[in-house]
Amino acid sequence: MSEKPIGVAVLGLGNVGSQVVRIIEQSAGDLTARIGAPLELRGIGVRRVAADRGVPVELLTDNIEELVSRDDVDMVVELMGPVEPARKAILAALEQGKSVVTANKALMAQSTGELAQAAEAAHVDLYFEAAVAGAIPVIRPLTQSLAGDSVLRVAGIVNGTTNYILSEMDSTGADYASALADAGALGYAEADPTADVEGFDAAAKAAILASIAFHTRVTADDVYREGITKVTPADFESARALGCTIKLLAICERLTSDEEQQRVSARVYPALVPLDHPLASVNGAFNAVVVEAEAAGRLMFYGQGAGGAPTASAVMGDLVMAARNRVQGGRGPRESKYAKLPISPIGFIPTRYYVNMNVADRPGVLSSVAAEFAKREVSIAEVRQEGMVDQGGQRCGARIVVVTHEATDAALSETVAALADLDVVQTINSVLRMEGISE
Amino acid sequence: MSEKPIGVAVLGLGNVGSQVVRIIEQSAGDLTARIGAPLELRGIGVRRVAADRGVPVELLTDNIEELVSRDDVDMVVELMGPVEPARKAILAALEQGKSVVTANKALMAQSTGELAQAAEAAHVDLYFEAAVAGAIPVIRPLTQSLAGDSVLRVAGIVNGTTNYILSEMDSTGADYASALADAGALGYAEADPTADVEGFDAAAKAAILASIAFHTRVTADDVYREGITKVTPADFESARALGCTIKLLAICERLTSDEEQQRVSARVYPALVPLDHPLASVNGAFNAVVVEAEAAGRLMFYGQGAGGAPTASAVMGDLVMAARNRVQGGRGPRESKYAKLPISPIGFIPTRYYVNMNVADRPGVLSSVAAEFAKREVSIAEVRQEGMVDQGGQRCGARIVVVTHEATDAALSETVAALADLDVVQTINSVLRMEGISE
Repeated sequence: MSEKPIGVAVLGLGNVGSQVVRIIEQSAGDLTARIGAPLELRGIGVRRVAADRGVPVELLTDNIEELVSRDDVDMVVELMGPVEPARKAILAALEQGKSVVTANKALMAQSTGELAQAAEAAHVDLYFEAAVAGAIPVIRPLTQSLAGDSVLRVAGIVNGTTNYILSEMDSTGADYASALADAGALGYAEADPTADVEGFDAAAKAAILASIAFHTRVTADDVYREGITKVTPADFESARALGCTIKLLAICERLTSDEEQQRVSARVYPALVPLDHPLASVNGAFNAVVVEAEAAGRLMFYGQGAGGAPTASAVMGDLVMAARNRVQGGRGPRESKYAKLPISPIGFIPTRYYVNMNVADRPGVLSSVAAEFAKREVSIAEVRQEGMVDQGGQRCGARIVVVTHEATDAALSETVAALADLDVVQTINSVLRMEGISE
Repeated sequence: MSEKPIGVAVLGLGNVGSQVVRIIEQSAGDLTARIGAPLELRGIGVRRVAADRGVPVELLTDNIEELVSRDDVDMVVELMGPVEPARKAILAALEQGKSVVTANKALMAQSTGELAQAAEAAHVDLYFEAAVAGAIPVIRPLTQSLAGDSVLRVAGIVNGTTNYILSEMDSTGADYASALADAGALGYAEADPTADVEGFDAAAKAAILASIAFHTRVTADDVYREGITKVTPADFESARALGCTIKLLAICERLTSDEEQQRVSARVYPALVPLDHPLASVNGAFNAVVVEAEAAGRLMFYGQGAGGAPTASAVMGDLVMAARNRVQGGRGPRESKYAKLPISPIGFIPTRYYVNMNVADRPGVLSSVAAEFAKREVSIAEVRQEGMVDQGGQRCGARIVVVTHEATDAALSETVAALADLDVVQTINSVLRMEGISE
């Protein structure tokens, strides 16, 4: 068993980086026993070298390029965040034969191909368990445990910020803006929350999950995306009336069309989820991923999807595995993209809609509304109409709620567009997809 | 990339074996792409060669020894069941340099050391994901994803038969015997259910989980074990009154005593679990494992814990990984037992008891009962006393239910023994531990 220390460079000293540094130092004995050689921290790349970072200042450097190129650095842990300069640093490390562990979802959802190729050429590992769902093992179960099975679908709550906001709206009746403000105050939302609330973060994770689950390449741009900014307290009221809650879901599916041509769909949107569905009770900053595979059936993975220590746990698992490979010889699984599945546009996806609209209160309205669904062969599962009164107690219209059976997203969205154009429809209050409801 | 086929022998053609054979044949194209070489089925070891087994009869052989020794067999999948002849066949395969995948929990909980050593000497893989919790990835997350973290506790529902029986008793009010009969009729319980209902199966899994979670060696004999045969409908009534249900739990813990000497505890028993605990809603034949680690926090893994196809999914994952290692070079994680933790006897374990007893209905009884708890420094969290009447409507005694705070199991069981000896105590109706309740 080799006793030669393995030199590690950590890039980034934020929440996750400082936890990784702490664990490497405090668990040194255990890590050495598990790896077969000690891990030694050679340097920490930061934007600005300062004495107050809680680590020996001589470890700090703002010269990332030099750090990853040092001869005594064998492995690089990238926790800097944005796509650049992370991409450049990782490429440089891989090209110099250093295994890399990263938590960078945006990068892995964009540049997997380039990075995987560099890792392949240099015969080193590129691990990214921490890029999806924090501490929850999902990459390794999908690439290894399910390597002999056939994954049909992955659906998950993979963004803690939006899940916190939606849980808050559900439990307190708060509107989106005040739930977002609360999330910010508690440190669950960033100053610019766009990446989270518009679904970009979840879309990057969906791209990664779809790629590994279906052995194909899916990038963030391939993912259909809607955020949560338009979800209202009224939507939650309607959800409750239907025995549902609302969750921002990342959904990856393998679809077989009539011509037996398999396609892959990856999409992110807020959806109605029945209260008895396992994802409905995943609240606050927690994450969960449900995987359905041909032989395994339905599996669920649940835990903390963000935060310094949980994410560091996933990083450290990757680091120990990459280090073991260095000591023992051998490598982890490479990128598997042989299936080369085309991406299915959102319009082709079979789904169910919930539509809530205000209409004029006169005879024939329901019939006009129903006709628009029928024209596009969308079958209605449930419809409710109730009268509305204004502040003076006068009848002022009616509210119609329609829940459809499954139809293509194109037929459903065309129906909604047509409804909006009807004279008798005053406003479309909300349109939400429904997931996890067996018909 | 090597194109030379990898020869596979499957030992056993029961529920799991026939699913593994089916997947190897039906998914040949995908498996080849994922491995980098085709898998070829060289033979299937069975007790009795017959033409009606649904596979080409020329693949069948009852000469296991010869099959695993064939030059064209590179890897062996053992799905025969009992410890022998599985142990002998696996040892022979490993010694001849063949990687082995097994689902044999009893064997892995007894002979890990011997088998791991043989795998080590021959530089091959020995994988056993399917031995614990069927399709649910738990071995790989514990050995790899959490390789850089420090696991504190693993608690799970890992036996589908007993979980089915307990779920049935809870939802229908059935007694143990009739719930067992139902489980048998549905194929969830074997003709001789001892291994399941007495907790031997769960104890084997607890031993495996404790070994890998804590990097130490725990065998089935080290696991404290109580079965579910004495659980009554009255226990479920009491559980409900306390906001709990009853589950057979496998619990593995790392304990730190006063002298800072770490110990490991592995135990299996039916316990009260609060209804809002994630394990409480795991019903029927499903399994779930909750892992608590220092950095990751609490993780939960859920899915089908038994059955041909789900177990075959786990076997196939192992088979693909072992085959990839053969093609790429390299090996998966070896046995990690460096921590060498002593086993903690059950008496040292801090836990909480629920005690339900019939007592004489006269002054001073509660005081005598409470005194026995106090003598052993067991603090009472909750006590309820109610009068009982006989069929003629006459007062005939009282029932006392005591829920304790945490104390050592030794203090608690001594208290119960002393209570049974009190003149005023007529019968001890039930004693159950409580888990998952934060104080």
